Amino acid sequence: MLVLSACACAAFAAETFSPATLARARAARDAGLRDDVGYDVLRALCTEVGPRPAGSAGDRRAVAWALATLERLGFANVRAESVTVPHWERGECRVEITAPWPQPMVAVALGGSVATPASGVEAEVVAAQSLDDLKSLGEARVRGKIVFFRGRMERVRTGAGYGVAVAVRGRGAAEAAKLGAVGVVIRSVGTDSNREPHAGAMRYDSTGTRIAALALSAPDADLLDRQLASGRPVRMRMSNTSRSLPEERSANVIGEIPGRGPAPGIVVAGGHLDSWDLAQGAHDDGAGVATMIAAAKLAAAQGALRHTIRVVLFANEEFGLSGGRGYAERHAAEMDRHVAAMESDLGAFDVWGLATGFGPGREALVEPILSVLAPICTEYVGNGTRGGADTGPLSSRGVPAFELSTDARPYFDLHHSANDTFDKVDPALLRENIAGYAALLVLAASGDVDFGRLPGGAPRGR
Amino acid sequence: MLVLSACACAAFAAETFSPATLARARAARDAGLRDDVGYDVLRALCTEVGPRPAGSAGDRRAVAWALATLERLGFANVRAESVTVPHWERGECRVEITAPWPQPMVAVALGGSVATPASGVEAEVVAAQSLDDLKSLGEARVRGKIVFFRGRMERVRTGAGYGVAVAVRGRGAAEAAKLGAVGVVIRSVGTDSNREPHAGAMRYDSTGTRIAALALSAPDADLLDRQLASGRPVRMRMSNTSRSLPEERSANVIGEIPGRGPAPGIVVAGGHLDSWDLAQGAHDDGAGVATMIAAAKLAAAQGALRHTIRVVLFANEEFGLSGGRGYAERHAAEMDRHVAAMESDLGAFDVWGLATGFGPGREALVEPILSVLAPICTEYVGNGTRGGADTGPLSSRGVPAFELSTDARPYFDLHHSANDTFDKVDPALLRENIAGYAALLVLAASGDVDFGRLPGGAPRGR
Repeated sequence: MLVLSACACAAFAAETFSPATLARARAARDAGLRDDVGYDVLRALCTEVGPRPAGSAGDRRAVAWALATLERLGFANVRAESVTVPHWERGECRVEITAPWPQPMVAVALGGSVATPASGVEAEVVAAQSLDDLKSLGEARVRGKIVFFRGRMERVRTGAGYGVAVAVRGRGAAEAAKLGAVGVVIRSVGTDSNREPHAGAMRYDSTGTRIAALALSAPDADLLDRQLASGRPVRMRMSNTSRSLPEERSANVIGEIPGRGPAPGIVVAGGHLDSWDLAQGAHDDGAGVATMIAAAKLAAAQGALRHTIRVVLFANEEFGLSGGRGYAERHAAEMDRHVAAMESDLGAFDVWGLATGFGPGREALVEPILSVLAPICTEYVGNGTRGGADTGPLSSRGVPAFELSTDARPYFDLHHSANDTFDKVDPALLRENIAGYAALLVLAASGDVDFGRLPGGAPRGR
Repeated sequence: MLVLSACACAAFAAETFSPATLARARAARDAGLRDDVGYDVLRALCTEVGPRPAGSAGDRRAVAWALATLERLGFANVRAESVTVPHWERGECRVEITAPWPQPMVAVALGGSVATPASGVEAEVVAAQSLDDLKSLGEARVRGKIVFFRGRMERVRTGAGYGVAVAVRGRGAAEAAKLGAVGVVIRSVGTDSNREPHAGAMRYDSTGTRIAALALSAPDADLLDRQLASGRPVRMRMSNTSRSLPEERSANVIGEIPGRGPAPGIVVAGGHLDSWDLAQGAHDDGAGVATMIAAAKLAAAQGALRHTIRVVLFANEEFGLSGGRGYAERHAAEMDRHVAAMESDLGAFDVWGLATGFGPGREALVEPILSVLAPICTEYVGNGTRGGADTGPLSSRGVPAFELSTDARPYFDLHHSANDTFDKVDPALLRENIAGYAALLVLAASGDVDFGRLPGGAPRGR
């Protein structure tokens, strides 16, 4: 697929949105601020399904729940598009400091971690601030040790601290193993101070020794830092029984609001259905699932739209992006019908900005969009987004992207931890997200304008 | 001991504090607001000892640490007074909802709970708001069920919600067993919304069936409430391996600032050394230990005092009050030398008030005390305190009491949960507590006045 291939509908596009479309978008927005569907959907997902990591029984229940929910809410063409997913099972994890001052620690295995030997691993701890710091320690100081990555994720509204921290989570064990380490513990990638470790994916090199990789809660990382600050050798024992099982089938679950226009294009409204296993995936990404389902209903309620709104509830975002990649591959032949994609995957927190990924020369579209969003957010982040984790493969194939920026501070307090539960969802903030996306869906599916095509690039992940 | 026996020193007492004493108290207060000793002591306790439930290896390490700390800081007559304590060990606890929508839950055994049968217990859940509500359900609706106590602890500055909630924690299993229940889960006695169950003591009747009693985290209790709200039968499986072991020896650890006056009396400055096992006992009651050690040092630094300040770090407050009872029994013969007792056991949070337990006719002493405390707190709670959990047995024997009231809201967010860790301690708020008690210790140990004796009554516990 050539990324600059013309959109099928471009020939019909005007310079900007019609007054009628803007009025509909405002009406969808206002209805969103009164919406109850989204909160009800999210309550049901958290109550009736709960944890749903890829390949698990919860994942299968989530797919069945999503199909039933989309049918019940009147979506068209409801279907499950099969996706192959990895299946990793957590097992049990124990960590304790054995010297100089014995204390139990609260830890979880990172997603993909191998087990330790059954007897566990006990070794002296060596601390590294970062991957670069690890390399500067060198093999002499790392061999035979447990490496503790002590770096803290920065707590900022944009979530910018995540990229740095997640590199350590993903690559820490592989890099430490190269230097002879026998295990890895990281300070959780998160911004809270609860006794709640944060899970998340890690990966090994295809060759090389595989050592267990665990995450400590922030207070446990603090304790380890304090014991290390004594200058005495600190020893730790860790054991872990997680394991990888054969791949499973899961599915992207899809429901549509069919477009009524000539040669209707497709607007993807995405969230991911899977979650980590420690919690209910309320914000990550039950909120995105509920937001897009409710927003699509509200957009449709304002009257016929030219383009089809396709709600895509992606499989396995968390552990390898199977759903996003699978969708882009399966739908490659209709990529030029995809006129826009949006994805909600930063929690139902305060919406503060709009980011776009429009083709060249579409600057004039931003102002009318912001005017509709004004009661919700006023900041324009820029034209730099290339989609979220699951819609990134679409944007890398040219599909324009929309993204509402939410406050990432409370999100990364909870993200991937046992604390990501339904009680943490503020219905008013969920409505803010629903209202914003409902307005964007009206605008994108109106067919009034053409958002252009993005230049090509490699798929990106979160 | 007759509770109205005259204090040995009453004959020397003036009507109010001397200007010199008030000046010293203010100086001790101001030094407290700059103190570093308390925070260093608390860091050491949390880092080098950590969890220290009665009878455990951590308890023994805590006693050794406390003796060494008091010696190092120059206290006199440092000693361990042996106390017999119960020894309960947590083991493993698993809870899951099995129907209508299976989900794992985060729970801990309450202190003292028996184990379930090895195969666990699976039964339908019946919810009760309170102990009275349980009784109104009656045996017909409770027999063979797991009882879920769903009541929520109120989050108020005074901590007044604790008394209500703790009655359910303490008595719930005994009362449910009488009606034929096979297990009990409670909504944690706490005020946070983290995935952190709160431990705490429960007790059985001496006769009758003993069933396991577990605490769910607040989000898990919410989930159970939501599944119950569906109207479908909710079933739960619980297993627990906790057990009671033979009694152990622990100790009240004592250090003194000897009084220099004629016939010196004793001012008890108390906190408890033990903690629950899930965390470091930073606020409960490492903060009290650190506060009283630092405050006593600061009081002494202002010059010789007539009465002895006796820092008492009580054993096993958490699981039966062995230390407080043991101290009062061992020192019964010198009870009339005890001129005042204070205890810090509500965390190093904002000090908002002063409570006293003075003998009759001492109202005039309150104003000068409040004038010294003015930079720290201005509210007078009244003359109703009868000591804390550990000093209560002293007050019930007539010893006057002082208490600084701290903000109980953040305290009960953490209390008895895994979250009670050193990182939660704000050094400025710890200093506020130290400053307040340093001033009170100067005033109480000055010998300027006589606080009278309290009328008798039954010992009370927290």
